[in-house]
Amino acid sequence: MSNSDPQHSPRIPHIAPVPLDKAYRLLNHGPTVLVSAEHAGQHNVMAASWACALDFAPPKVTVVLDKATRTRELVEASGEFALQLPTLPMAAMTVALGTDSAKTHPHKLQQHGVELFHAPGHATPLVQGCAAWLLCRVIPEPHNQQTYDLFIGEVVAAWADERVFRHGHWEFDTAPDALRTLHYVAGGQFYATGASVTV
Amino acid sequence: MSNSDPQHSPRIPHIAPVPLDKAYRLLNHGPTVLVSAEHAGQHNVMAASWACALDFAPPKVTVVLDKATRTRELVEASGEFALQLPTLPMAAMTVALGTDSAKTHPHKLQQHGVELFHAPGHATPLVQGCAAWLLCRVIPEPHNQQTYDLFIGEVVAAWADERVFRHGHWEFDTAPDALRTLHYVAGGQFYATGASVTV
Repeated sequence: MSNSDPQHSPRIPHIAPVPLDKAYRLLNHGPTVLVSAEHAGQHNVMAASWACALDFAPPKVTVVLDKATRTRELVEASGEFALQLPTLPMAAMTVALGTDSAKTHPHKLQQHGVELFHAPGHATPLVQGCAAWLLCRVIPEPHNQQTYDLFIGEVVAAWADERVFRHGHWEFDTAPDALRTLHYVAGGQFYATGASVTV
Repeated sequence: MSNSDPQHSPRIPHIAPVPLDKAYRLLNHGPTVLVSAEHAGQHNVMAASWACALDFAPPKVTVVLDKATRTRELVEASGEFALQLPTLPMAAMTVALGTDSAKTHPHKLQQHGVELFHAPGHATPLVQGCAAWLLCRVIPEPHNQQTYDLFIGEVVAAWADERVFRHGHWEFDTAPDALRTLHYVAGGQFYATGASVTV
């Protein structure tokens, strides 16, 4: 059984639900995300820098999904996707998932060590090792999708690693550095989420 | 002459043009922005966390502008806005510009020490002290604007502080910390852009 088989669901010890009215905070600092999707027994994961909060309640998000991607096909077919925030040790995996297409690299998840799990009742797989996860239902907007590759989703469930997001707040400064999230620029270069600044 | 009068245009020593094909990199790491706009001699500036790159070439962006804001009215009237990236010393100003509305605080720019300047040939004012600036023309999408408060803009000119963005790359690690950009979460709390990670 491969690591990327979503039926292989090891214990995920640190995941805790995030109330939907706090879900926007998971994306508010502008992290790079992984986008996962599933349809008819097929699943995939890609990286995306262009994901953003869109509304507080109900929480909504935008994400740009290029027409060339396998993940987009699965999102369009299933009407669902998950956004999740890769952590510092996942930087190389994130670049690989944003570079290799499942269309040319059908085993890309296994090759890059992606381990998936499922939230009960949801077919869309989630990626282990992330700092937070947002399960979203597509709000169909065909013009945006066709013209701008822009998808709008309503967040229907959210979770975070409770070591780094607690009581509705990120705690990057006191959590292990390995739980910092990533902000991609270009050419394999990211910035980690940095020091807290409170005014 | 007040600090926020855009006719008061002091020397901006470190600003350099950014080629349009590199403009997406100014937003790719997900920073919080200030949104400025001008129409018929009126101008304003607000803060926004929900701004995102949308395309590479021509570069496009999305930004969420609440219907209650004065800045949105100016954007709708003029068809133009600027996004700019406030730096670490501007954290308190950024929170204030996102909290106080010009409708109830008509002198909010002066009160919070906002100093504006103009790029030649552009009416939309830019905010001094930022790390980068993107001048955008609205691509009218009335359904998105009305339903989601979501505006799409095409970037028509971009600049950055050459001490921190050079040759198409951010250089946060070697620039003064005061030039780090900000990632807002909630409740007056930001994270600064952190350490560079290259894979």
